Amino acid sequence: MDLTERVLAGDRLALARLLTLLENDQPEGHDGLAALYSRTGHARIVGVTGASGTGKSTLVNRLALALRAAERAQTVGIVAVDPSSPYTGGAILGDRIRMRDLAGDPGVFIRSMASRGALGGLARTTFSVVEALDAAGFDMVLIETVGAGQTEVDIARMAHTTIVVDAPGLGDDVQAIKAGILEIADILVVNKADLPGADHAIQLLRASLQMAHPTRHEWAHHGLSEGPAAPPAESTWLPPVLPTVATQGEGVPALVEALEQHRAYLLKTGELALRQRERARAELESLLRDQLAARWRVAQPDGRFDAALERVVRREVAPRRAAADLAETGKG
Amino acid sequence: MDLTERVLAGDRLALARLLTLLENDQPEGHDGLAALYSRTGHARIVGVTGASGTGKSTLVNRLALALRAAERAQTVGIVAVDPSSPYTGGAILGDRIRMRDLAGDPGVFIRSMASRGALGGLARTTFSVVEALDAAGFDMVLIETVGAGQTEVDIARMAHTTIVVDAPGLGDDVQAIKAGILEIADILVVNKADLPGADHAIQLLRASLQMAHPTRHEWAHHGLSEGPAAPPAESTWLPPVLPTVATQGEGVPALVEALEQHRAYLLKTGELALRQRERARAELESLLRDQLAARWRVAQPDGRFDAALERVVRREVAPRRAAADLAETGKG
Repeated sequence: MDLTERVLAGDRLALARLLTLLENDQPEGHDGLAALYSRTGHARIVGVTGASGTGKSTLVNRLALALRAAERAQTVGIVAVDPSSPYTGGAILGDRIRMRDLAGDPGVFIRSMASRGALGGLARTTFSVVEALDAAGFDMVLIETVGAGQTEVDIARMAHTTIVVDAPGLGDDVQAIKAGILEIADILVVNKADLPGADHAIQLLRASLQMAHPTRHEWAHHGLSEGPAAPPAESTWLPPVLPTVATQGEGVPALVEALEQHRAYLLKTGELALRQRERARAELESLLRDQLAARWRVAQPDGRFDAALERVVRREVAPRRAAADLAETGKG
Repeated sequence: MDLTERVLAGDRLALARLLTLLENDQPEGHDGLAALYSRTGHARIVGVTGASGTGKSTLVNRLALALRAAERAQTVGIVAVDPSSPYTGGAILGDRIRMRDLAGDPGVFIRSMASRGALGGLARTTFSVVEALDAAGFDMVLIETVGAGQTEVDIARMAHTTIVVDAPGLGDDVQAIKAGILEIADILVVNKADLPGADHAIQLLRASLQMAHPTRHEWAHHGLSEGPAAPPAESTWLPPVLPTVATQGEGVPALVEALEQHRAYLLKTGELALRQRERARAELESLLRDQLAARWRVAQPDGRFDAALERVVRREVAPRRAAADLAETGKG
C-alpha cells in the first residue's frame, strides 16, 4: 500500500508521515494530499484562539474528551499552532501534558505546528494539515492558536466555527477590547470563571460584542416581534458568552451544545458553503501567487533581481517602482 | 508647493495626509514616497514589541520624552501598530493618553496603524509609513507593536534595533518562554520591575536567552580571554535584560544608553547595512509578487479563476494543482 492508502486505512504512522512531508513542503506530501482531496469536506473544523494564560489548551483537551465521551463518539484531530514557537512535531511541553489525558485513545490525533517547521508558511501549512486530517476521516478537527495576530486571523478563516477564549485578570480594560479578534468569534468563552473578575470579563465581552454587532444585539434585546426590520431568528447568529472552568470540566457540556447550535445555524443559512468557498478562494489565490513568483524567477536572467535590489539599497529608486520595472521586464 | 515639498518643509498636516494616502494604498501616496525616497536612510528605526499588559505604550512614551530631553534633543516619530485593532488614524484610546504627555511638542509625531486602515497589508503599509517619517527628517522612529504574531516579526525585521518588553505575572512559565520572539530581541526589558516576580522574570529571560544563543552566552560567562575561539568583543551582541518602571521613568536612561550601544555595535560591525539590505530585499520581493499577480489578472480572460475555484470547491481538484494549471495558462 502506498502512503495515501495507508492514511485512508487509518494508519496513524502514515498520517504523521504525510503531515511531516506537508510541513516540510515536500512534493510527495502535496501529491499525497492531492490524491486524497476528493475525500475531504466531511470534518467539522473548529478554531480555538485566545491569549496566553487563558487556559485554552486545557479547554481544547476537555472539549476533545467530551466529544469522545458523547453518545455518538466523534473522532478528534487536534492541530496546535504556535506561531511564536520554534518547536514542532510534538516536542512542546503542552503536548506532553495533553498526552497524559488523551494518550492511548486511537480516536484522537494530536499535531503541534510551529513557524520553523512550516516551510511553506504557517497558515498555508495549517490549511494542508487540516485537509489531511479531514481526508483521514476525523469527524472533528480542532485548531488551537495562540494570540490575536494576523496568522491567527488567517487560520480562523479556515474554521467553520471559531471559539475565542478569554480569562479574567489578563490585562487592563482597554487592551481587553480587541474588536478585531471579537469579529472572528462565533462563540466566546470566559475560562477560569471561578476566579475573581470573571463576571466583569463576561460583561466586558458582552459590551464589546454590542459595539461590534450593534444591530444583532438590538434584535436580541428588543425581541424579534418588536422590530419590523428584524430578520427571522435563524438568519442571525449572536455569539454567546459562556463561562467555563476547564480544569474542572465545568461549562464544557454547554460549549459542546453551542457548537451544535452553530453547526445547525451554518447549515440552515447556507453560510457553511459560503465560508468553505471563501476559504478555498483565499488558498487558491495564495498558491497562485507563489506559482507566478516561481515562474518569474525561472524566466529571469540571473542577477536581474539583485541589480534592482542594489539600486533600492542605494536609494536611487523606490521599491515600488523597482518592483514594477522587474515585473515589466519579466513579461517579454 | 506640492505635498512632498510641504512634507520636506516640516508641514505636519501634509505629512499626516501623505500617511493617510499610503494607508489607503493610493497612487498619489506611493508617488509621493517615491519622490521622497532619496531622502530616506537617516532615521534610526527602533521596534518595541511585547504582549498586552506589559506597559509597552507607557515605555514608548517615556522613551520619547527622554530622547526629547537629551542634551542633543532628537525628533521622534511614533508608529503604533495594533494588528487586532480595527481603529486607525489616532482614534484609539492609547493615543489620547499619549497626547497628554507629548502634546504640543512639534518634535514628536504619533501615528496609529491598524489592520483595517492598511489596505496594502499592515506590514507593507508600516514599511511605507516609516519610510515617510524617515524622509520627513525624524531622527528616531519608534515602531510599537502588540504581541508575538507573524505581523510583529515582519515589522521587527524593518527596525535597526528591536526591544522586546516583558512584565512579571503575565502567564505561566511555559508560555513565557517564547524563543521565536526572543530571537528578534536586541534588548530585553522587564517593565513593572517593582512588582513581585520581576526578579524571577529577569532570570527566566536570561535563561531563555542562553537557550537561544548558547555560544554568545558562553563567551559572556567565561570571559573573552579564556576561549580561544571567541571572536573579538565588538563582533557579538549580547541582548541585555533591563528592568524598568515606565510609569516612574525608572530604568529609561539605561535603556537609552543600551540603544546607543547597540547603534554603535551595528555601525562598527557593518550589521546595519546588512539589516537594511535584508529589509529592502523582503520589501522588493513582496511588491514584485503583487505586481506579478496584478499583471496575471489583467492578462486572463474573465471567469478563468472562478471556474478553477468552482472545481476546488466541488473537490474535483486540489488547490495546489488548480493553482499550477492557472499559472500555466497565464503564461501563453
